[in-house]
Amino acid sequence: MDTAADITAMRRAITLAARGLGSTSPNPVVGCVILDAAGRQAGEGFHQRAGGPHAEIHALRAAGERARGGTAYVTLEPCNHTGRTGPCAQALIEAGVARVVYAVGDPNPQATGGADTLRAAGVKAEQGLLADEAEAGNVAWLTSVRLGRPYVLWKYAATLDGRIAAADATSRWITSPESRADVHRLRAEADAVVVGSGTARADDPQLGVRGIEGAVQPLRVVVDTGATTVRPGARVLDDTAPTLIAVADGADARHLPEGAVLRLPRAVTGPGLDIPALLTALYGRGIRSVLLEGGPTLAGTFVAAGTVDKVVGYLAPVLLGAGPAALADAGISTIADALRLDVTETVRIGPDLRITAVPGPARKGN
Amino acid sequence: MDTAADITAMRRAITLAARGLGSTSPNPVVGCVILDAAGRQAGEGFHQRAGGPHAEIHALRAAGERARGGTAYVTLEPCNHTGRTGPCAQALIEAGVARVVYAVGDPNPQATGGADTLRAAGVKAEQGLLADEAEAGNVAWLTSVRLGRPYVLWKYAATLDGRIAAADATSRWITSPESRADVHRLRAEADAVVVGSGTARADDPQLGVRGIEGAVQPLRVVVDTGATTVRPGARVLDDTAPTLIAVADGADARHLPEGAVLRLPRAVTGPGLDIPALLTALYGRGIRSVLLEGGPTLAGTFVAAGTVDKVVGYLAPVLLGAGPAALADAGISTIADALRLDVTETVRIGPDLRITAVPGPARKGN
Repeated sequence: MDTAADITAMRRAITLAARGLGSTSPNPVVGCVILDAAGRQAGEGFHQRAGGPHAEIHALRAAGERARGGTAYVTLEPCNHTGRTGPCAQALIEAGVARVVYAVGDPNPQATGGADTLRAAGVKAEQGLLADEAEAGNVAWLTSVRLGRPYVLWKYAATLDGRIAAADATSRWITSPESRADVHRLRAEADAVVVGSGTARADDPQLGVRGIEGAVQPLRVVVDTGATTVRPGARVLDDTAPTLIAVADGADARHLPEGAVLRLPRAVTGPGLDIPALLTALYGRGIRSVLLEGGPTLAGTFVAAGTVDKVVGYLAPVLLGAGPAALADAGISTIADALRLDVTETVRIGPDLRITAVPGPARKGN
Repeated sequence: MDTAADITAMRRAITLAARGLGSTSPNPVVGCVILDAAGRQAGEGFHQRAGGPHAEIHALRAAGERARGGTAYVTLEPCNHTGRTGPCAQALIEAGVARVVYAVGDPNPQATGGADTLRAAGVKAEQGLLADEAEAGNVAWLTSVRLGRPYVLWKYAATLDGRIAAADATSRWITSPESRADVHRLRAEADAVVVGSGTARADDPQLGVRGIEGAVQPLRVVVDTGATTVRPGARVLDDTAPTLIAVADGADARHLPEGAVLRLPRAVTGPGLDIPALLTALYGRGIRSVLLEGGPTLAGTFVAAGTVDKVVGYLAPVLLGAGPAALADAGISTIADALRLDVTETVRIGPDLRITAVPGPARKGN
C-alpha cells in the first residue's frame, strides 16, 4: 500500500518533471525524488534537456550514499537502454536503491524493460502511483509516442463573440497583458510554435518566448504554402531561435535561407499543405509538442485533419459584432459534425477567461 | 453597529426578494423579515405581484402582535405612498415596530420618504445594511427607474468559436439540456422576452417559460420591422402569454391580431426599428426587465444603441469553424471602439460554461 510519504514524494517528482517542459524533446519530462532508508528526502532531480542526465541520475548524484536502501520515486519507468546517457535502471541498482516506485510505464519500445531489469536485480519495482497526474504532466510526449506525431495545442484569443480582430483588422489588444504573458508560458513549454501565412503577413510576429527566465526558445514554423509571405527581414527569421518555413513542393523559395525551408506535399483536398505530413516532418526533427497559434485558416485545417489535441482559448470580455472568427473552415457544415470537446479547466487571467478543452472521448485518437 | 443577527435577517430578506423576480413589475422585488423584541424571527414575506401586498405587509401579517417592539429588515426603503396598497411605513408604525433596517433607498420619487415618516413617528430607521447585495438583487428595477427604460439582459448560446449555428443553419443543439433549462429561469425572471425576425423565421419559437413551477409567463416581443415574418399560426401568437409584434410605422400588419401590433419609428441610421423607442414603449407598458434572446442582428442593434446592461453567454465546448456569429453589426469597426465588459461570474452548466458580464464603468449609463 502506498503511504502518505509515498504520495508526497511522487507528487513532488511530478512537480519537478514539469520544469522540463519545452526543453527535453525528443525525450519525455521526468522527475525523481529519492528517500533514504529512514524515509527522509535524500535527493531529487528532473530531466532538464535531451542529451543531459536523466532525472534519476540527478537525484542519485544529490543523494550520494544516502540512496542505499532507500526508495526512488520516478514519474516514468526508468529507462533500460544506453542512449546518450547510461541506463537509469542500472544506475539505480548500482546505487543500492531498495525500491523503485514509478507512475507510468515507458511506452517507448527502445527504452522499456527498466522495471524488469530492476526486479531481476532484487529491487522492488511498483507501477501506478499517481499515474493519472503523472500522465497528465507528460501528456504531450506520451501522445506523440502513441500517434507518431507531435501533440498539438491550439491556442486562440478572441472576444466573447468569437472575433480575433475588428472589421478593420485591428486586434491590439483584445486580451489583457496577463493573458499575453500566459501565452509566453505556453510557448516556453512547447517544442515548436506554428502559425499560418495570414498571421505572418498581418502581424510579422517574432514568435519567441519573452519574460520567462531560462526558457528554451521553441522552433518557429510558418506555414507559407506558396512561399509568398515570409520575406527576408521578417522578424521570424531573426537569429534568436531556429525557424522553418513550410512551403509546398515546387514553390519558389529561393528568397528564403535554404536551411529554413521545409518542403511538403499540398493537402489532398482543400488549400494549404498536408497537415499530417507537416506533423510527421516535425516529429522526425524531434518535435514532440506544437503550439498552434493561428490564424483561423490554419487552425481550421488542423481541426479538419483531426490533429488538435487540446484547445486553450483566451476569451476577453469584449464585444465587436464584426471581424474574423477564431476558427475558419474546418470542413464542418452541419451541427451533427461539430467537434465536441470537454472543458477541463476555466481560469480567470486578469480580466479574461482562459478555457481549456480537449476533444471528447469519441474523438480521441483522430 | 449591525450584529450578526441583523446580517442574517437582511440576507434572508434579499433571498426572499428574489422569489418575486419576473412577477412584480412595474414594482421592484422586495423582501422583508421581522424579528420580535427578543430577536427571534416573527415573520417574513416578499412582494409577489404588482397589485398584491408589499413585502412588509406579508411579514407583518405573519408576525402579528410579535412585531411590537421588534425590528423589520427590508431590502428597499418602505414606501410612503398609497398606491394599490396602503403605505408600508404607516403599517410598520401601526404594528409597533421599534426599528426598521432597510438596504437601499427608494429612488422612485412617488414612493420615497418612508424613512422620514418612520423617524417622525419615533421609529429608528437605518439605511445601508448589505446595500450592494440588495441592489444587485434588484438591479433590473433600479436601473429601469434610473434610465426610464427596461433593464436589458442579452443572452446568447454559442460555440467556443462564437457560432450560433452551423453553416447549413442547423443549431439543435449547440448547448446542453442543462443550459437550455437555465434559459427558462432567465425567461421566468424577465418581464419580456425579445427576439428579432431572423430568429422568429428560423425557429418559430414559442418563447414561453417551461419547467418552472409558478412562473409568470413573460410578455413575448418579436421585432418584425416590415411585418413580413410573423404570420397567423406562429407559435409566438398562441394564447399562453401576451405577445407584441413590433413593426415599423406604415408597415402593413393587417394579418396580425390588432392588439398585438406595436408600431414604432424606424431606426434613424441603419436597418430595423428605433431601439430606444421600443424600450420606451415597453417601459410605458410596465416592463422593467427584458431578456433579449436574439438573434445576432437584433443584438447588434441593441449593442449599437448602448442598451445592453448585462450579457449572459452560454458557451458550449464545441467547434464549428463556420456559421453565423453570436453578434452581428454593432457599429464597431475598430478595436478601440470595442464594447469592453467585466466578467462578473463564470459557472459550469452541465458541459457548458455560463459567462456573465456587464459593461465596464466607462460604458455605464450608455
